[in-house]
Amino acid sequence: MKIIEEGSLLLIVYRDKKYLKKAVINKPFHGKGGAINFQDLFGKPFGIRYGEYEIYEPTMEDLVMFGLKRETQIVFPKDAALISFKLNLRPGSKIIEIGTGSGVLTFVFSNTVGPEGMVVSFEKEERHYKNAKKNIENHCSWENVTLYLGDVLTYDMSGFDAAFIDVREPWEYIDKAHKLLKKSGSIGMIVPTTNQISEALKELQKNFGEIEVLEVLLRKYKTVPERIRPTDRMVAHTGYLIFGRRLD
Amino acid sequence: MKIIEEGSLLLIVYRDKKYLKKAVINKPFHGKGGAINFQDLFGKPFGIRYGEYEIYEPTMEDLVMFGLKRETQIVFPKDAALISFKLNLRPGSKIIEIGTGSGVLTFVFSNTVGPEGMVVSFEKEERHYKNAKKNIENHCSWENVTLYLGDVLTYDMSGFDAAFIDVREPWEYIDKAHKLLKKSGSIGMIVPTTNQISEALKELQKNFGEIEVLEVLLRKYKTVPERIRPTDRMVAHTGYLIFGRRLD
Amino acid sequence: MKIIEEGSLLLIVYRDKKYLKKAVINKPFHGKGGAINFQDLFGKPFGIRYGEYEIYEPTMEDLVMFGLKRETQIVFPKDAALISFKLNLRPGSKIIEIGTGSGVLTFVFSNTVGPEGMVVSFEKEERHYKNAKKNIENHCSWENVTLYLGDVLTYDMSGFDAAFIDVREPWEYIDKAHKLLKKSGSIGMIVPTTNQISEALKELQKNFGEIEVLEVLLRKYKTVPERIRPTDRMVAHTGYLIFGRRLD
Amino acid sequence: MKIIEEGSLLLIVYRDKKYLKKAVINKPFHGKGGAINFQDLFGKPFGIRYGEYEIYEPTMEDLVMFGLKRETQIVFPKDAALISFKLNLRPGSKIIEIGTGSGVLTFVFSNTVGPEGMVVSFEKEERHYKNAKKNIENHCSWENVTLYLGDVLTYDMSGFDAAFIDVREPWEYIDKAHKLLKKSGSIGMIVPTTNQISEALKELQKNFGEIEVLEVLLRKYKTVPERIRPTDRMVAHTGYLIFGRRLD
Repeated sequence: MKIIEEGSLLLIVYRDKKYLKKAVINKPFHGKGGAINFQDLFGKPFGIRYGEYEIYEPTMEDLVMFGLKRETQIVFPKDAALISFKLNLRPGSKIIEIGTGSGVLTFVFSNTVGPEGMVVSFEKEERHYKNAKKNIENHCSWENVTLYLGDVLTYDMSGFDAAFIDVREPWEYIDKAHKLLKKSGSIGMIVPTTNQISEALKELQKNFGEIEVLEVLLRKYKTVPERIRPTDRMVAHTGYLIFGRRLD
Repeated sequence: MKIIEEGSLLLIVYRDKKYLKKAVINKPFHGKGGAINFQDLFGKPFGIRYGEYEIYEPTMEDLVMFGLKRETQIVFPKDAALISFKLNLRPGSKIIEIGTGSGVLTFVFSNTVGPEGMVVSFEKEERHYKNAKKNIENHCSWENVTLYLGDVLTYDMSGFDAAFIDVREPWEYIDKAHKLLKKSGSIGMIVPTTNQISEALKELQKNFGEIEVLEVLLRKYKTVPERIRPTDRMVAHTGYLIFGRRLD
Repeated sequence: MKIIEEGSLLLIVYRDKKYLKKAVINKPFHGKGGAINFQDLFGKPFGIRYGEYEIYEPTMEDLVMFGLKRETQIVFPKDAALISFKLNLRPGSKIIEIGTGSGVLTFVFSNTVGPEGMVVSFEKEERHYKNAKKNIENHCSWENVTLYLGDVLTYDMSGFDAAFIDVREPWEYIDKAHKLLKKSGSIGMIVPTTNQISEALKELQKNFGEIEVLEVLLRKYKTVPERIRPTDRMVAHTGYLIFGRRLD
Repeated sequence: MKIIEEGSLLLIVYRDKKYLKKAVINKPFHGKGGAINFQDLFGKPFGIRYGEYEIYEPTMEDLVMFGLKRETQIVFPKDAALISFKLNLRPGSKIIEIGTGSGVLTFVFSNTVGPEGMVVSFEKEERHYKNAKKNIENHCSWENVTLYLGDVLTYDMSGFDAAFIDVREPWEYIDKAHKLLKKSGSIGMIVPTTNQISEALKELQKNFGEIEVLEVLLRKYKTVPERIRPTDRMVAHTGYLIFGRRLD
């Protein structure tokens, strides 16, 4: 059984508030529910109460939402989960990502392909690259990620099982992705606007098949058994997802 | 590079039609786009055209949609992807599934946790158990699934990272799932009706925290660049997803 | 109290089936629930059972869905209701419609503006014009509709409270609609694709304000009290609605 | 042409901000876009610019959103529009409303049924009654509304074309609504929770037919032609709408 110790990462929950904190001796946490002296928790399991707080072991989703530092619009769990699925990622898969951004998807891909898999990711902006590098170093369980600062157009490996493009003009990289992918390999993209869907499709239809465009809407419900109803507001849009398969 | 050979499983696409077929010599396939003599394909890569057909290597999703034999309402990819994500499944995770059904989720879980992971699944109905067994034997890449015919209430292992319940009255198994889970472990359920949400929440709130109820809506778009628009109809409902974390 | 008599229009319901029929003596109706001899109903009120059938007085929605003959993609009630509302139509309003189509919206507008209101509608295709004319003559309660066969560009009245455009290239009529509208008057459009939204907005932003683009999704639920849940499938898309106000 | 004069109600728009104000001499308006001296506007038409502001004649929707004083959860335009449509309200219709609340629906009904129609509305809470009374007096164009403070159960008129119930336990009034309605008349309800749907259906199924339960989702889009996309967030839930027809 995993226990809390010096340096453990904790998900701390107080009603609707969530905090992701490292347990450090003599550095108490002060939140809405009062103070937590971490040493009180040492040796205890996760999944326990501490005063009005609940303490959990962070999941991949907790790390995405509260652990990774964001410098760009992040890909939401609802989309990240379907992207991994649609790209057919499994333990051992090799994926190339074009546009690391804050590294959220990179992190999810790393978690999905595991120690036998491989994630290669390119980012052109140095600031994003550095931020993503820290996120990956701090939070990935496995050494399966290689980040590159620069343009993927000069990169020369091939045989990837899947490719994902998350840049403003993804159509500029579709032909390159075709070369990087193994035959029959899966491509994915995320774009915020319908105008970008049009542009991407024109390029994608040249040498990809099985093309799909879709969007995921997630609706949350309140959890009072006597009053089941959706929350008042929801995320209406993150991005449109585009998928295809290399076709020669 | 993977090539097509005797016994290869193929995804055959003709316009909107898809077929999942095993390539067998002298057993030609006859579809809307004409005949395919599989021996013509032997030695060739996937991701190619054959007359008006396109031939791809099947993905996990293709197997779910066209390969697994269904005897029950199946869990859709849109839900399966988010379930795996929310349950924090990764290479090496151990999950217990209560209600194997047709084995679709079992299959997805197997693909997600990989060769170092473990999937234990219980089914009470012999007919479903037998069907799921065949599905798992035919389609899982790894020997990481154990199917049981019977009631999980008499099962006595513990320490699972995650538990998923897909039966008509999931609340009857929530307390058991608590015992099977490691501390801080994740639980999930899918139910078709809001009345079931109420019942499940009452039980779940006894000793689980971080409870969430949600639904996933997937909207597909037509892929004509000059006429971007959603398809005319969509799936309006599959089930409500309920998640929580073991809390002691 | 309104009673059923020779010539009355009836909404006949048998489980999920609905029929809109004129009650005529000696012309029995034969449906899934058996025969109806209309003379049995004469003198009776609406809202009654007849064998396994239910007999109602048709509403505006029933007429839209089952009474009007369709030759074109019709505007759905979910959209028609919001269009009337957004266009600020009330008893006495004057509206110009560009693109009569099957006359469904014309009919709804007629019902909304009433005997003191006015609906002028233009249609360029003779076949549609003739069909719409019949629909209006057969089903409108008030003589407040004027249909024109031809192009609105040559029409010369002004001072309309609202204008609605339902043609393939609505942007060609936006400037004309501006001239037809009273100052501060409301304009509306429906287009199926996002590409058309772009084109329409470019033109609309020249001399309209308060511009809105939106879509309406209607989700139906099954009506079993112990099993509340949405229907399995739904309409995913009819059209995008665009609204604005004349701004000088 | 309607012109702006002392006492006119104006919709004042400045970018995303909207104000509903009465034009009064020597009482300038101060908003984000600077001051407006109303006398500058007197004699001018609506639908004009004033500095960075746009000035429109308020529509029914503007009055609902910015004019009526709210003391309760209001019914949104997306729902109000469909409710009026589904209840088959037209010029001249007679409707009984049970639960006036802030009078928003009362106001919409008044606008829909017009001078020949009739709206009777009951409210049990004096505070709401008084607020609604002011809203109706200030904003209805026609004298077609009668508000009652008290319980509709003691009310004794009948023959209404439609009935709408907006109270916490609508099922308590369904039988009464049956008596108030003409035969074949339409009933509607709005409830926020699925538990209430269950309760309402049980009662409704006793002597109503053509029962429907549905919800309306409205998604708004940004209006930049080169970047068509939904807004980031949306209203996820207002209420479930329930409809039926009196069946004897």
